[in-house]
Amino acid sequence: MNPRFTIEATDGAARLGRLHTAHGELQTPAFMPVGTYGTVKAMTPEELEGLGAQIILGNTFHLLLRPGPRVIAAHGGLHGFMHWQRPILTDSGGFQVFSLKSLRRLSEEGVRFRSPVDGSEVRLTPEDSMDMQLALRSDIAMALDDCTEHPASEGAARASMERSMRWAERSHRHYYATEPPGGLFGIVQGGMHPALRLASLEALLRLDWPGLAVGGLAVGETEEERLGILEGLVPHMPAQRPRYLMGVGRPEDIVAAVLRGIDMFDCVMPTRHARNGHLFTATGVINIRNSAHQDDTGPVDPGCECYTCRNYSRAYLRHLDRCNEILGARLNTIHNLHFYLALMRALREAIRAGTLTAWARDFLAARRAADAVA
Amino acid sequence: MNPRFTIEATDGAARLGRLHTAHGELQTPAFMPVGTYGTVKAMTPEELEGLGAQIILGNTFHLLLRPGPRVIAAHGGLHGFMHWQRPILTDSGGFQVFSLKSLRRLSEEGVRFRSPVDGSEVRLTPEDSMDMQLALRSDIAMALDDCTEHPASEGAARASMERSMRWAERSHRHYYATEPPGGLFGIVQGGMHPALRLASLEALLRLDWPGLAVGGLAVGETEEERLGILEGLVPHMPAQRPRYLMGVGRPEDIVAAVLRGIDMFDCVMPTRHARNGHLFTATGVINIRNSAHQDDTGPVDPGCECYTCRNYSRAYLRHLDRCNEILGARLNTIHNLHFYLALMRALREAIRAGTLTAWARDFLAARRAADAVA
Repeated sequence: MNPRFTIEATDGAARLGRLHTAHGELQTPAFMPVGTYGTVKAMTPEELEGLGAQIILGNTFHLLLRPGPRVIAAHGGLHGFMHWQRPILTDSGGFQVFSLKSLRRLSEEGVRFRSPVDGSEVRLTPEDSMDMQLALRSDIAMALDDCTEHPASEGAARASMERSMRWAERSHRHYYATEPPGGLFGIVQGGMHPALRLASLEALLRLDWPGLAVGGLAVGETEEERLGILEGLVPHMPAQRPRYLMGVGRPEDIVAAVLRGIDMFDCVMPTRHARNGHLFTATGVINIRNSAHQDDTGPVDPGCECYTCRNYSRAYLRHLDRCNEILGARLNTIHNLHFYLALMRALREAIRAGTLTAWARDFLAARRAADAVA
Repeated sequence: MNPRFTIEATDGAARLGRLHTAHGELQTPAFMPVGTYGTVKAMTPEELEGLGAQIILGNTFHLLLRPGPRVIAAHGGLHGFMHWQRPILTDSGGFQVFSLKSLRRLSEEGVRFRSPVDGSEVRLTPEDSMDMQLALRSDIAMALDDCTEHPASEGAARASMERSMRWAERSHRHYYATEPPGGLFGIVQGGMHPALRLASLEALLRLDWPGLAVGGLAVGETEEERLGILEGLVPHMPAQRPRYLMGVGRPEDIVAAVLRGIDMFDCVMPTRHARNGHLFTATGVINIRNSAHQDDTGPVDPGCECYTCRNYSRAYLRHLDRCNEILGARLNTIHNLHFYLALMRALREAIRAGTLTAWARDFLAARRAADAVA
């Protein structure tokens, strides 16, 4: 079924919404933990649910290479394969293919690349991406796009964006050719050029999408560039559709984007940071590997109510990290995902209460103060 | 407090017992998962409890090197450090030191070795081992012994055993010099020489121990050698004390030893095998890395009730293993520990019912049949 979006409250440009999918509904603004290989690294589905994860993201590129569509289809799709019963969004695979750079060959048809797993040649066209996402039976699929390089001249960004729009149309036609298990989101491209962004949006809106994403950000641009693009684009996006900012980001980036009307986010930061010993706290990010934590019997964040902070000390987490223990990656991931998902709950509560502006000002001021100290 | 042992039922030489410690009691025969660095690899304490783990083993050698006694003492001991509230047994560190071979220097005082972590010289005397185990505040501590090489001539085995007995006396004196948090087990040595084993037992029994262990087995001897030693030794061990067979072993080894009157076991096999993709089933060990499991949507063991078998397929576990995903190590560990802990429950039930002989005959026959097929 196509996801349906309802808006329950607004506060400035920010929206409190509810997205209904074949695997239940989720409240927005929402953060999607990333489950690259059919697992949000180190977590069970029950743990993710306990942390308040409403939806996760699966990576089409990685799952295409391993284990491939046949194995997942034999389990009835990605939900059954990985034992996750809530909604799943899958990306198109485009972003990962384009990051292969020299290993890929691009044409109007699509992209061909050497598998980093076994060296075989793999083809990814818009139709291939749709077929894979249909095999995964995700609740939200993404159109295949040509990921514009950064920085890109206006000419290069326009050519790339226009190809993305042709691919978006092919994606849409192929995805909806039969009764799909979910809905397909289109992706606005156009690099750092506001006029191209609006042209991309206009092109997309010739078709009906249950949601729209902003791609091509979180690629190395400055915060000013990113916010400038959002401020020029988001007010023109259909109000009644969810808006997904792909690959963003730091907690402060998420807050800034919610203030500008974004509803959905994904980022590897909380999970990847966790495995590298970087833990989010109310007063900034700490590196648990630092020797300052060696004898610290206190929790990562005294105000945090996560399982890790309720039961384990900084000294223990540092010890696990030094010994490369799996439990360390687990406990750190629990903490960081709790931080992100609690942030999303706080944002939703502030929108409902109509206090988002003041809440965000305090939050961002505390982050800047913490960064100034760190 | 010194652990107290009560026997509730016997079936031949096998005993159903209850060991009371400062952190609660456990039923025997018992298997102790190994928590080398203050974590049973990949598991939380809550998961271990859910699997039925009643007691775990901590490694003095590893914890001495990382994080060292000061950090653990600051947490009130190993229980508080690792958030495990049930009983803990700690080994003496001797076994690991002796496996360093060329990096160690042995004298009557004790042993000195180069830390594999940072190259510094470390000393481990019986008194050092007791101090470390007292800092860990384990419920059961082990005397430091000189681990006899295998194979060893009778002369070499005798000299080694006699040193172990002198160290056992020093361990006992030092451990009980103040009010200890737990009790100290002595360790019978003597290599593969039955007369030396009896001499070692006789020497130990000059002191009062709340339990006795059989050391120096699971070192490469044949099954016949091991069972021969147990059959010559165990009937002479005090009936009213728990008997711990160190480092054993495969499921069939545990069953054979329970039949001969052993009460406690530890082994890294279920957890280490899990991380290597070797999974125990009723019909033998499978290697989840085998391509035969690539498309298998069924569970590891259809008769198994563990979380892994209830929710995940062999194909998914193989995929996680191939991708080196942390969740794979977790799910495999859950399955293997469930297998071992369910085995111990079955053994206890059979002893209580007086049906151990028949139960063990069927179990061992099924294992031999599975091995013949594998």
